[in-house]
Amino acid sequence: MSVLQLPASATPVDKVPLSFGLVLYPGFQALDVFGPLDALNCLSFIYPIKLHILAETLDPVSTKPPQGLEHSGSSFAQSIVPTHTFENAPQVDVLIVPGGVGNRPPNSLEAALSYISRVFPELQYVFTVCTGSGVVARTGVLDRRRATTNKVAFARISASRPQVEWVGKARWVVDGNIWTASGVSAGIDAIFDFLQTVYGSEVASMIADFMEYERHTDPTWDPWAERNNVQ
Amino acid sequence: MSVLQLPASATPVDKVPLSFGLVLYPGFQALDVFGPLDALNCLSFIYPIKLHILAETLDPVSTKPPQGLEHSGSSFAQSIVPTHTFENAPQVDVLIVPGGVGNRPPNSLEAALSYISRVFPELQYVFTVCTGSGVVARTGVLDRRRATTNKVAFARISASRPQVEWVGKARWVVDGNIWTASGVSAGIDAIFDFLQTVYGSEVASMIADFMEYERHTDPTWDPWAERNNVQ
Repeated sequence: MSVLQLPASATPVDKVPLSFGLVLYPGFQALDVFGPLDALNCLSFIYPIKLHILAETLDPVSTKPPQGLEHSGSSFAQSIVPTHTFENAPQVDVLIVPGGVGNRPPNSLEAALSYISRVFPELQYVFTVCTGSGVVARTGVLDRRRATTNKVAFARISASRPQVEWVGKARWVVDGNIWTASGVSAGIDAIFDFLQTVYGSEVASMIADFMEYERHTDPTWDPWAERNNVQ
Repeated sequence: MSVLQLPASATPVDKVPLSFGLVLYPGFQALDVFGPLDALNCLSFIYPIKLHILAETLDPVSTKPPQGLEHSGSSFAQSIVPTHTFENAPQVDVLIVPGGVGNRPPNSLEAALSYISRVFPELQYVFTVCTGSGVVARTGVLDRRRATTNKVAFARISASRPQVEWVGKARWVVDGNIWTASGVSAGIDAIFDFLQTVYGSEVASMIADFMEYERHTDPTWDPWAERNNVQ
């Protein structure tokens, strides 16, 4: 007995991307990763998809904030096990890049950035959440593309790469094959938009229903832009 | 520079629970865990809280569905590293129990159930998501308590432990010190209700804002009850 059934209207399996890669780095934001991934975990009940979890080494990667940003008395983090390093990553169709306070140092994440630059031309889709778009932007591959990011970090990130056409008021932005979501939970709405576009609207609705998630389906819905004076 | 600042109205640190435990088992639902935990990751910027990730052994625990439930061609899962086993778990104030297809076999999870039974009298709070309430119910500690669960699984779970006062239409239910959330994403709304009750409403609002999350604040909001003919 399967948990979910492939709807008749779903995009046929030979027309969809099946290989996903997740870029992990220390201090990633957990929901940036697991909002989208849990929807994809559900997709794995109906499509034969694969996930490669990529990091600089095979050591578990922690959500722990970098030193100086955490509360000194806290010890509150989760560690995820990579499946491959950036060096030995298998072929990937869809690359997912989360945000998180771990990417704040502008000179950090060299191995991840080098991997993203190298693999970008072969990707079918790129999907970023929160300040993950800022990470990808640092490689230059978003130049002259429309993209958004977390609204608290918007001024900092847009200033760091002005060659990107940063969109202020957006729950998410799609430019060609690139989905960029706004802050943290926006990744959930954006992944359902991605599922709808690529695998079919019935697939997206069925999985949202399974997760008891009420989607925001309007990409311009974004109360946090105004609250943070982002135009 | 801290990422978040403790609001003046927040509950003082000596009045709040500081030690959290997460029960992990193979085939847990990722968002059941990481919706609530990401809000608590944010709480860790302003309170000195600790997280203990508890499982039967210290081996990483995977979201991979049990054999027979997964798509045969899929290889799509994430593995989390426990910090302790149920046997050597430190003292815990708040116990979090997720759902997931891994708990479907009615005779599974013996080590987790034994731990929950043993530790329950010492807990300040219990927090379940999705079919996690069904897991806790199997120990008997929810008997004569009001609780809810995933609406797709409602008939099965409520039949399995009729001594619990199962509430059909609810995004989440609070009975004394026990929060039970409905399916998957409901855990996010329920954790913000928990944060509001225990740490203060400004703390809950600040973290929801940081995560760009629009809360459902009405615990009776539940379109999935009707869609699944749950009364």
